[in-house]
Amino acid sequence: MRTAERLEDYAKLIVEVGLNLQPGQRLAINCSLEHAPLARSVAARAYGAGAQFVDVLYADQHVRLAHIERVEEDDLDWSPPWLVKRLRELGDDGGALLGLTGNPDPELFSGLDGGRVARARMQELSATSLRLTEGLCNWTVVACPTTGWAQTVFGEPDLERLWEAVRSAVRLDEPDPGAAWRAHIADLDRRASRLNARRFDTLRYRGPGTDLTVGLLASSVWCSALDESRGIKHVANMPTEEVFTTPDARRVSGTVAATYPLQLNGTLVRGLQVRFENGRAIEVAADEGEEMIRAHIASDDGAARLGEIALVDRSSRVGRTGLVFFDTLFDENAASHIAFGAAILVTVPGASDLPPQERHARGINSSSLHTDFMIGSAELSVSGVTMSGEEIPILRDGVFVLS
Amino acid sequence: MRTAERLEDYAKLIVEVGLNLQPGQRLAINCSLEHAPLARSVAARAYGAGAQFVDVLYADQHVRLAHIERVEEDDLDWSPPWLVKRLRELGDDGGALLGLTGNPDPELFSGLDGGRVARARMQELSATSLRLTEGLCNWTVVACPTTGWAQTVFGEPDLERLWEAVRSAVRLDEPDPGAAWRAHIADLDRRASRLNARRFDTLRYRGPGTDLTVGLLASSVWCSALDESRGIKHVANMPTEEVFTTPDARRVSGTVAATYPLQLNGTLVRGLQVRFENGRAIEVAADEGEEMIRAHIASDDGAARLGEIALVDRSSRVGRTGLVFFDTLFDENAASHIAFGAAILVTVPGASDLPPQERHARGINSSSLHTDFMIGSAELSVSGVTMSGEEIPILRDGVFVLS
Repeated sequence: MRTAERLEDYAKLIVEVGLNLQPGQRLAINCSLEHAPLARSVAARAYGAGAQFVDVLYADQHVRLAHIERVEEDDLDWSPPWLVKRLRELGDDGGALLGLTGNPDPELFSGLDGGRVARARMQELSATSLRLTEGLCNWTVVACPTTGWAQTVFGEPDLERLWEAVRSAVRLDEPDPGAAWRAHIADLDRRASRLNARRFDTLRYRGPGTDLTVGLLASSVWCSALDESRGIKHVANMPTEEVFTTPDARRVSGTVAATYPLQLNGTLVRGLQVRFENGRAIEVAADEGEEMIRAHIASDDGAARLGEIALVDRSSRVGRTGLVFFDTLFDENAASHIAFGAAILVTVPGASDLPPQERHARGINSSSLHTDFMIGSAELSVSGVTMSGEEIPILRDGVFVLS
Repeated sequence: MRTAERLEDYAKLIVEVGLNLQPGQRLAINCSLEHAPLARSVAARAYGAGAQFVDVLYADQHVRLAHIERVEEDDLDWSPPWLVKRLRELGDDGGALLGLTGNPDPELFSGLDGGRVARARMQELSATSLRLTEGLCNWTVVACPTTGWAQTVFGEPDLERLWEAVRSAVRLDEPDPGAAWRAHIADLDRRASRLNARRFDTLRYRGPGTDLTVGLLASSVWCSALDESRGIKHVANMPTEEVFTTPDARRVSGTVAATYPLQLNGTLVRGLQVRFENGRAIEVAADEGEEMIRAHIASDDGAARLGEIALVDRSSRVGRTGLVFFDTLFDENAASHIAFGAAILVTVPGASDLPPQERHARGINSSSLHTDFMIGSAELSVSGVTMSGEEIPILRDGVFVLS
C-alpha cells in the first residue's frame, strides 16, 4: 500500500470517526516531531472538512531532556502561560483536540533523575489538558507509527510491520472502516449496558500477584470510549477495546501486579506491584523504574488513588496481535487496566458540575495526572459483587463472560 | 568534522555571540521541523548558560500549505492569540529570541494563489514579532543547513558543502570565532562611523536597471548588526556584512533592479524591477513571482515604501562564496540591499518612543512586514550627496571606497 494512501485513509478515520470534526471548528494537534507525516495528512483532511484553523504543536523530547537535565529546580515545573492559554481557548471556543502517541524513544529519559522527570511534568498544563476531555472538546488519541517505536516493539526498525499492526488495531483493514467502527462501538456499549444492569457494589480481581477489591460508586456508569462533548459524538481513543468506569477512590484494597511494562515519562516501568489500603497505594515496587513511578504518584494528593477501572477481553484486536507495544494506548486495549489519578468524569453523571471538594467527599478522585497500567492477562478473573453479596463472573481467564 | 561537534560549535557561537544569552533569561526559538538538530544543540547550550526555559516552536510549511490552500478566506490572516501572547510575554519579561532560516523548500508555495499566500501572513503575529526586535529582546537570526536548502543552492543535496559555506560565512572556520566576530563588528562599526561623519542628505544608486535616489533622515544613523537591547549587546544576524540605516520613506524615486532572486512566502521572485515615486513603489514587474510581490507590498500602508537601506562590500565573506543562497539572510550579506516595510527603529534615536503617527509624519516607515531585496553587484555604484550638493563615492563597482 502506498504510504500516501495509508496516511490519507488514517487521516479520514481520525477526522470523521475519532474527532467527528465539525465545520468551523479549530483543531489542536499535540504530537512529536516524528509524527509530522500523519499530522500533515490530518491537517489537510481537517481543512477539507472545514476546520477554521489547525494548530500543530510539535514536541521535541530532546529539548525536553536538556530542560530536565539542566534547568534550575524551581523552574522545572513551569507551565508556559501561552500553552495554557492555547488549551483554555480551545475549550472556551469548543475546538477539537487530537493527541498522537507512538513514542520514538520510550526510554530516552531513563538515565535521568526520576524525581526531576516527575517534577518537570508542567502540572498546570496537564491539568488544563485533562479538563478539555471532560466535555469541553471532541477529542481523540491515536498512534503514529515511527521507526523508533517499531524498534522498541520488534527489536528492529520494521516500520511496515508496525503500520500493519496499527492498521489492523484501528480497523483500517476493513472494507468500510467507518461502518466497522459503528458496529464495534455498539458491541462495547452492549457490554457496558450489561455491567450497568447489574449495579455491582464491588469488583474482585484475582490472578498471579493480584488480589484486589475495588469499590464502585453508586452513581457511576460503565461506558465505552464513544464520548459526547457539546453534542458531538467522538471516539476518545483509537484503538479502544475497553469498557470503563470510575471507582470509589476510598474503597480500594489488596495487591495488584502489572502485566505489561508501563511507558512513563521517557522511562519503562517493569514488574510493577502495588498494595492499596483504604484507596491509597501504600506500597509500590518495580523491577525497573521504581523511582519514577514512586515520584509520579507523589505528584499530588490524588495521584496515588485510582481514577479509572477498565475491563478488556483478551481476544480484542490488540490482544490478538500478541505484541507488547510499550505504548499505553495499545497495551491498555490488550488487557484490563486501572489508572492512578483523575477520575473520568463522564462516567459519573453530574460530577463535572460539582465543585472539587464535593467530588472528593463522594470518592471521585481528582489529580492533575491520569496514568493507566495494565493488570489483565489470560489468568485474570474479575467478579462483580452485588449489594446483597452475590458474586457474579465478569471475566474468566481474561475472557468477558457476563451476560 | 563530526556532526555533533559542528553543531556544538555553532550553538556556542549563537548563544554567546549572537544572543549573548544571560542567566535566567527565557529563550524562544522559531524554526522549521528540519532545523531540529541545531535547535536541540542551542537548547542544551542555552540551558547550560542558565536559561530559565527554552521554548522551541517548530513550524511546518506543509501544514501551512494546507491552510493557505483550503481555509475560508476570512480565516486566512488569523493570528493564534496564544502565539501573540507568547511573543508579548517574551518582550515583557526581557527574554531572548532566536530565528532559524534555511528554507528546506523555498518554492513549496509557488503553485498557490499569490494573493492568498500574502493574506495568510498572520499580520498581528508578524507585527508583534517585529516589535520584539525594537529593543525588547536580545535576538539573532542564523541559518541551519538542511538537505532541501542544499538542493536549492547546488542543484544537489550536498549538505556537507552547504555546512562548509555556512561555517565560513559565520566565521566558525576561525580558530577563535568569538574574537573574529569582535574584530569583524569593529570593522563594520568603523564603516558606519565614516558614513555618519558625512551626514549625507541623499544616496544615489546607479547600475544596470538601477537609477535610484533615496533621501535620508536628518535624525538617522548608520549602524552595524551589533544591537543593544535592555543593556545586552547582541548580533542581530549571523552572518552580517552590512551597515544600514532608515531612509526617508517619502523621498525615494527612480528605478531599481534586484540582482538576486528573492525568497518570499514559499515562492521565488526573480527579475524584480521597481519604480518609486515620492517614496512609494508605483510600478512592480518580475520575471517570476510578480503576483506574489505585488500582493505582498499591498499588505498594508507602509508595505510599498522603504524601511531600510544597507550597504555591503561585494568582497564580504558571503559575496566571496560566489553562491546564490536563495535565502535573504545570506544573499543580503553578499550585496547591498533595500527593504520594503518597517523601519529599523534602532537607527533613528528616540523613534521607538514616538507614537506611530508622529513617526509617519517624520518619514519613518511603519508596516507589519520588513522584506529585504538585493540590488548590489560588481556593477553597482553608490554615492552620497551632502546638503550642499557635493557628491562623494561610497561604493564603486560594488566595493566600499568611502574613507
